[in-house]
Amino acid sequence: MQIPEILLVESEHRPGSLGRILTAIGECGVVIDHLTAVRRHQDRTTWEITIEIDEETGRRVTERLAALPNARLVGKSDRVFDRHRGGKIEMVAKVPLDSLQQLRDLYTPGVARVCLAIRDDPEKIREWTNYGNSVGIVTNGTAILGLGAIGAQAGLPVMEGKSMIYSRMVGLSGIPVLLRETEPGKIVDTILAIEGSFAAIHLEDIAAPACFTVTRALEQALDKPVLHDDQDGTAVVTLAALLTAVRKTGINLHEAVVGQVGLGAAGIGIARLIRDFGVRDLIGTDRRPEARNEFEQLGGTLVTLEKLMHDASIVIATTGVKDLIAPASIQPGQIIFALSNPEPEISARHALEAGAAFATDGRSVNNALGFPGLFRGALDARARRFTREMLLAASYRMAELAPDGEILPDVLDPATHAAVAHAVSQAANRKSP
Amino acid sequence: MQIPEILLVESEHRPGSLGRILTAIGECGVVIDHLTAVRRHQDRTTWEITIEIDEETGRRVTERLAALPNARLVGKSDRVFDRHRGGKIEMVAKVPLDSLQQLRDLYTPGVARVCLAIRDDPEKIREWTNYGNSVGIVTNGTAILGLGAIGAQAGLPVMEGKSMIYSRMVGLSGIPVLLRETEPGKIVDTILAIEGSFAAIHLEDIAAPACFTVTRALEQALDKPVLHDDQDGTAVVTLAALLTAVRKTGINLHEAVVGQVGLGAAGIGIARLIRDFGVRDLIGTDRRPEARNEFEQLGGTLVTLEKLMHDASIVIATTGVKDLIAPASIQPGQIIFALSNPEPEISARHALEAGAAFATDGRSVNNALGFPGLFRGALDARARRFTREMLLAASYRMAELAPDGEILPDVLDPATHAAVAHAVSQAANRKSP
Repeated sequence: MQIPEILLVESEHRPGSLGRILTAIGECGVVIDHLTAVRRHQDRTTWEITIEIDEETGRRVTERLAALPNARLVGKSDRVFDRHRGGKIEMVAKVPLDSLQQLRDLYTPGVARVCLAIRDDPEKIREWTNYGNSVGIVTNGTAILGLGAIGAQAGLPVMEGKSMIYSRMVGLSGIPVLLRETEPGKIVDTILAIEGSFAAIHLEDIAAPACFTVTRALEQALDKPVLHDDQDGTAVVTLAALLTAVRKTGINLHEAVVGQVGLGAAGIGIARLIRDFGVRDLIGTDRRPEARNEFEQLGGTLVTLEKLMHDASIVIATTGVKDLIAPASIQPGQIIFALSNPEPEISARHALEAGAAFATDGRSVNNALGFPGLFRGALDARARRFTREMLLAASYRMAELAPDGEILPDVLDPATHAAVAHAVSQAANRKSP
Repeated sequence: MQIPEILLVESEHRPGSLGRILTAIGECGVVIDHLTAVRRHQDRTTWEITIEIDEETGRRVTERLAALPNARLVGKSDRVFDRHRGGKIEMVAKVPLDSLQQLRDLYTPGVARVCLAIRDDPEKIREWTNYGNSVGIVTNGTAILGLGAIGAQAGLPVMEGKSMIYSRMVGLSGIPVLLRETEPGKIVDTILAIEGSFAAIHLEDIAAPACFTVTRALEQALDKPVLHDDQDGTAVVTLAALLTAVRKTGINLHEAVVGQVGLGAAGIGIARLIRDFGVRDLIGTDRRPEARNEFEQLGGTLVTLEKLMHDASIVIATTGVKDLIAPASIQPGQIIFALSNPEPEISARHALEAGAAFATDGRSVNNALGFPGLFRGALDARARRFTREMLLAASYRMAELAPDGEILPDVLDPATHAAVAHAVSQAANRKSP
């Protein structure tokens, strides 16, 4: 598996020495993710070079660098870990607490009046507490990134990452909730026992097929927005990217045959949303019986991978299996979304070389673009659930916001998320005025 | 029941007009909590006068003010609610998120390395996430303040108050968890299902006797600090106050007969801690069979209220029943702690007038002094539980920190909490080096 690595390399101040370093890395088949100078000495500079490598490639890079003149691999940077030290989020007071009067207003005895006001009118919890801004980010740790069932606690850095993005992009309080249980019934029971803590429930990194049962049960039981990000969050961003891709290629999405390779959480979420959008001809492939069953219930037709690659004008792959799609199977003019992270089913470059009209991978279709605006919009509208219209509105808005030449808008621009939230909120109000 | 009220009163700029207003309020039997000028006009000033009143007294105050010359009750201030608008806490990112490099380090793909590091060494969760600073503040809403079983959601302002104090005083992230269930077995199951989210569990406002079962079960099941604040947090602050009180009065606490009126969560917590401190002669009274049973298991002797008031040199009341202790029952030289909030079993003034050597109430024995330092100390020491030694160390340190003439140190001084945390942490390390 490829993981990000940050090399610290010294180059002497001679013409061509940095170029030789980067060329040597390139000749190992590795792309430079990022490069920055971290220290300048009298006669040499230390560079921080970010790449993504597996163990074997890492050894080759090390050997190549050792053989270079005027360069020296001096170590690896702990930048990723340094940035994680002590965690990425914290719960803080948003009111000052310097005087006894403040303490007596905000704590006892003053707080008693506020409690009674909420007891008398439960909706007031949104006015006098942070409840209306709170999202429980709940995982059981069974499908953390592409790493699999590594456990909820090992997944906490991802949950903190979601919470960090909520905070920075839309001002929501995302609260990581790490579940011990993996069995769907127990997950549902636990969430129902604590759901009063949050205005909305963001399910994260729960493996299929448990995630389908859990999401449906919670949507039915709760009068508040529930969304499994790996299903619907990913689907919203994928549909937005599809909309810009068909704009570029002239394919009519309503008429197209869409083929889905992999019918796990993401695959099923995408299938459901593009069907709701209006895709009529949906074919798919997966080995797992539950996955096949879910897909058929959505009206999809199961086919072999070969037939899918042959018939589909748009291929969306979410299998987690590197290099699953052979370049030879690409049809001229196809749109290829190979979304598995960190290693796609086929690289965009290979797909384009093989004749695809458009190709992208999971890095360009970043699901961090989805959940912040979706939840902000739902909470702003005080929506009781995510409707299909809200999800579609988010996709449409994202596609509109994508600048020329880009497949999606800037994920780090709070204005992007505010615009998506507004569209979601409007859709919610249209449905339940 | 008395609740805080903030009156807005205009006084004309004539000598004696403010004095007359405050005298009129005083003559209704009401103490001025706080007074501040909020608006100065050409010929008059608007004052914000904070008092605590019940409905009947409120009417009397209104009538008296209406009858005054040169003064006018113009309304009530919403200051308490204004300060609560939107809530008191929020979850925020503590790292910047402005560049793609930051996003790629803190979220995908970089975060994968951090997840794997925790999978390989679960203790690293304390290093690379905020986990080690997190405290779940868990309530089922069955004993919110003195308001009773108003429900967990109506209790959220109290939980946010605790969290706000954690944040401001000791930099911990207190996460409110509102439980739907009230049955002890289900409370325990739910907490065990989510405990992986938090480094420590702060149980709050769970009614007796469920709180005893729940606390014991969690202490046994979990390898992390668990504390029911209403029991042990209150006990720590009460013992500290007792230590300064006996210093003032010359009573030997080890030799004294301590009488406890009310054996609910607070009463039992106090009984357990003062027994561990070394009080040998403990008598108590309560009507509830479970409460009586708990107390006897701690080695206490059940007596009538009359006998208790006669025999005890120190009386600690935690009943929630206003005016339960008749002034005539006070013995000369007694220490009286009438801790019920907001209305004590006997006011400190009445107790002193009746011959008590020392008297105080729940306002002076503020439990906000306890939990921040207790949890900060336990987490700093990575303690696996709260030991009795840690609780006693907190009480001793608080008593040492109380300035001359004060019963306890300043609750709003972070240095107080840091000193208590240090004492708790040292005690934890002494026990399990």
